[in-house]
Amino acid sequence: MTAAAQTVPTASGRALADAATVVRWCDELAAVSQDDGRITRVYLSPEHARANAVVDGWMRDAGLETWQDAAGNLHGRVAGATPDAPVLLLGSHLDTVVDAGRYDGVVGVLMAIRTVARVTAAGPLPVALEVVAFSDEEGTRFGKALLGSSAVAGVWDEGWWDLEDGDGVTLRDAFTAFGLDPERVGEAAVRPERLVGYLEAHIEQGPWLERAGQALGVVTSIASARRFAVEAVGEARHAGGTPYERRHDALLTAAEAALAVERICRAEQHVGTVGTMTVEPGAVNVVPGLARFSVDLRGEFDEGRDRVWETIVAAFDEIAARRGVTVTPTEVHRAPAVFCAPRLTAAVRAGIVATGETDPAELFSRAGHDAMSLGLVTDVAMLFLRNPDGISHHPDEFVSEDDVALGLDALAVAVERVADDLAARS
Amino acid sequence: MTAAAQTVPTASGRALADAATVVRWCDELAAVSQDDGRITRVYLSPEHARANAVVDGWMRDAGLETWQDAAGNLHGRVAGATPDAPVLLLGSHLDTVVDAGRYDGVVGVLMAIRTVARVTAAGPLPVALEVVAFSDEEGTRFGKALLGSSAVAGVWDEGWWDLEDGDGVTLRDAFTAFGLDPERVGEAAVRPERLVGYLEAHIEQGPWLERAGQALGVVTSIASARRFAVEAVGEARHAGGTPYERRHDALLTAAEAALAVERICRAEQHVGTVGTMTVEPGAVNVVPGLARFSVDLRGEFDEGRDRVWETIVAAFDEIAARRGVTVTPTEVHRAPAVFCAPRLTAAVRAGIVATGETDPAELFSRAGHDAMSLGLVTDVAMLFLRNPDGISHHPDEFVSEDDVALGLDALAVAVERVADDLAARS
Repeated sequence: MTAAAQTVPTASGRALADAATVVRWCDELAAVSQDDGRITRVYLSPEHARANAVVDGWMRDAGLETWQDAAGNLHGRVAGATPDAPVLLLGSHLDTVVDAGRYDGVVGVLMAIRTVARVTAAGPLPVALEVVAFSDEEGTRFGKALLGSSAVAGVWDEGWWDLEDGDGVTLRDAFTAFGLDPERVGEAAVRPERLVGYLEAHIEQGPWLERAGQALGVVTSIASARRFAVEAVGEARHAGGTPYERRHDALLTAAEAALAVERICRAEQHVGTVGTMTVEPGAVNVVPGLARFSVDLRGEFDEGRDRVWETIVAAFDEIAARRGVTVTPTEVHRAPAVFCAPRLTAAVRAGIVATGETDPAELFSRAGHDAMSLGLVTDVAMLFLRNPDGISHHPDEFVSEDDVALGLDALAVAVERVADDLAARS
Repeated sequence: MTAAAQTVPTASGRALADAATVVRWCDELAAVSQDDGRITRVYLSPEHARANAVVDGWMRDAGLETWQDAAGNLHGRVAGATPDAPVLLLGSHLDTVVDAGRYDGVVGVLMAIRTVARVTAAGPLPVALEVVAFSDEEGTRFGKALLGSSAVAGVWDEGWWDLEDGDGVTLRDAFTAFGLDPERVGEAAVRPERLVGYLEAHIEQGPWLERAGQALGVVTSIASARRFAVEAVGEARHAGGTPYERRHDALLTAAEAALAVERICRAEQHVGTVGTMTVEPGAVNVVPGLARFSVDLRGEFDEGRDRVWETIVAAFDEIAARRGVTVTPTEVHRAPAVFCAPRLTAAVRAGIVATGETDPAELFSRAGHDAMSLGLVTDVAMLFLRNPDGISHHPDEFVSEDDVALGLDALAVAVERVADDLAARS
């Protein structure tokens, strides 16, 4: 028996060199953190400013013209062959969750910089290329995700100004403290009529590519998401003297609610997570009178997501009534499912095929991305990089340098394909 | 039909006047708080010092000789008829939970001051009377309850010095910052051979007297208690990308554990409470990797309490194994059940009967009290005051001025009875 010939995807020498640079940069950015020994970099913080400054230097070294926009996003641009050439955006984000890994968002920004330098080395393309390093994708500081890309997409909501961080600082005041003018946030918006689209490379934040045994994947759509801040108000009472039938325990109500989110989402093939919980008064000998927790809900389609949320609310209501505790959810974030544009996913697919992968994996992203905001105003597509064990939002998050190299080759081909398509149509 | 003649307990004029003073003092002490608009007064804080100073003034005005002991407890004394007269301690505590009511502990200290002044007005008794205002009963700051009365009982544990508050300040450093010398804490200990016993008046922290329709009650024993700090360690992962079968969610583990505490304690006629919960990293879009929570467990007898805890631990182990999360409880407090001395409870009972109540209610205290520490070295008894709706550890905590007056009359008679018994025996 002879084994059938197998294609083994292999990166180019240029991509291997660029991948080494990207991984080194990821390590350097990991040190730009508010915490010693772990990575935490949030919107409008001193670390945000330092990260922008560091990446700005790398962009300029790569030949990009740079600027920071009115929402704190960092941009780097290489002009097209003509002054009125349309713009292809590439990018991802530089902000992180608390105690983050070093690749989420960051690797996509840095791959975009190397890719722009590479594909314009021999001269301008028919498209202008613009890298955007978004300033807030995670929503770590203000609870509302995608602030940076919402500004670029021109969908900023004036109601967000009063959002507060954990210290009670409003988004408006944080803007001013960072040196930005809230009145001018509209200037960060792109002109959609000038865009060709938006391409984003990102590590996968789940195990699907690892299971498929492939380094790269074509994203077909990005999950629909809603987030809620939930408050359970019961009654603080003495933990010793109060019999169970007189208790209105906010913590036990929240505990049941969190388990209901899990039970319902598992049954309905959705993903729901309670990521935060705080309790007041929070004393060992007091029945909790108040509990606050978050619900993050994701699904492939908006309708399914909303139906599941209704089921969750009904479960909350039943728990609340039984325990004599009020449970009040407030929506803090809503993003519709975004479907990637076939024209752009074809380019990403062609890029992966060019690395030697004959049948690239296609997958839907359960995680949210900046491409969701851009998808409101232009065509988008995403390239996922394999994430061994699928771990993300954790210090153990990992992507191999070899996979980054394959991703760089694929992204370069994808960008050239988009440019060629445009030239062929004009 | 004619109604049978009913005895209606009625307070004396002296007691009514003293009760008005006590309630006014409670209102004044409520302003000694670290928080505006709510009452929070913890061990070794600036508010602890201010409360001691205020109560010291009231003690001296009432004719008591005062001092602060080596653990920050405030004492006020009226000598007995002879220099070697044995000592009857009266007291309760001045510290509070977070967002507390104004009577828990405080009312017992202030009733003791008025009672000592009243019963010694005509001259010294055969016993010396010493009011102790304990500095830490709740354990709010360091998690370990009864620190103040443990020092007085001479059962201080050297292992406590490294306990930390929420800001990482050790008990040792807090002692020094308060102006106390950790090396000298042993000097706070009483000499048990000189004691007659300890009497404590306290609001009930449950609804039993209200249900019995009585203003006052005789405490027969104080619940056995154990407290645990529990840590659940799972794995922080991306909330979107991580499928349920790959999750090790520390918050859902803690939620199940909290519900198990409730379920088991209800079934076993015990009282268990999860009063605190914190989650890390605590981000809306991250599966929690770590959760910490407290368990407060109380029962009438030590053996039953320990058996119930074993059942809870078995439930924790099952939950932990199923979710792939480690759950580790650490005991932070253990107090055996304390049984009140018949000799002293008879005096309390006689005091209540003297108010006109023919059949005083007897009850066991599910809440812990300073009397638990004193019970390790001397005889103790407690007088409970009715607490409408049984609410405590909450701003709505209440005791009526009329009930305080009845309590003052009962306490005076009880103290005189103890003194008379002693005189009769000598």
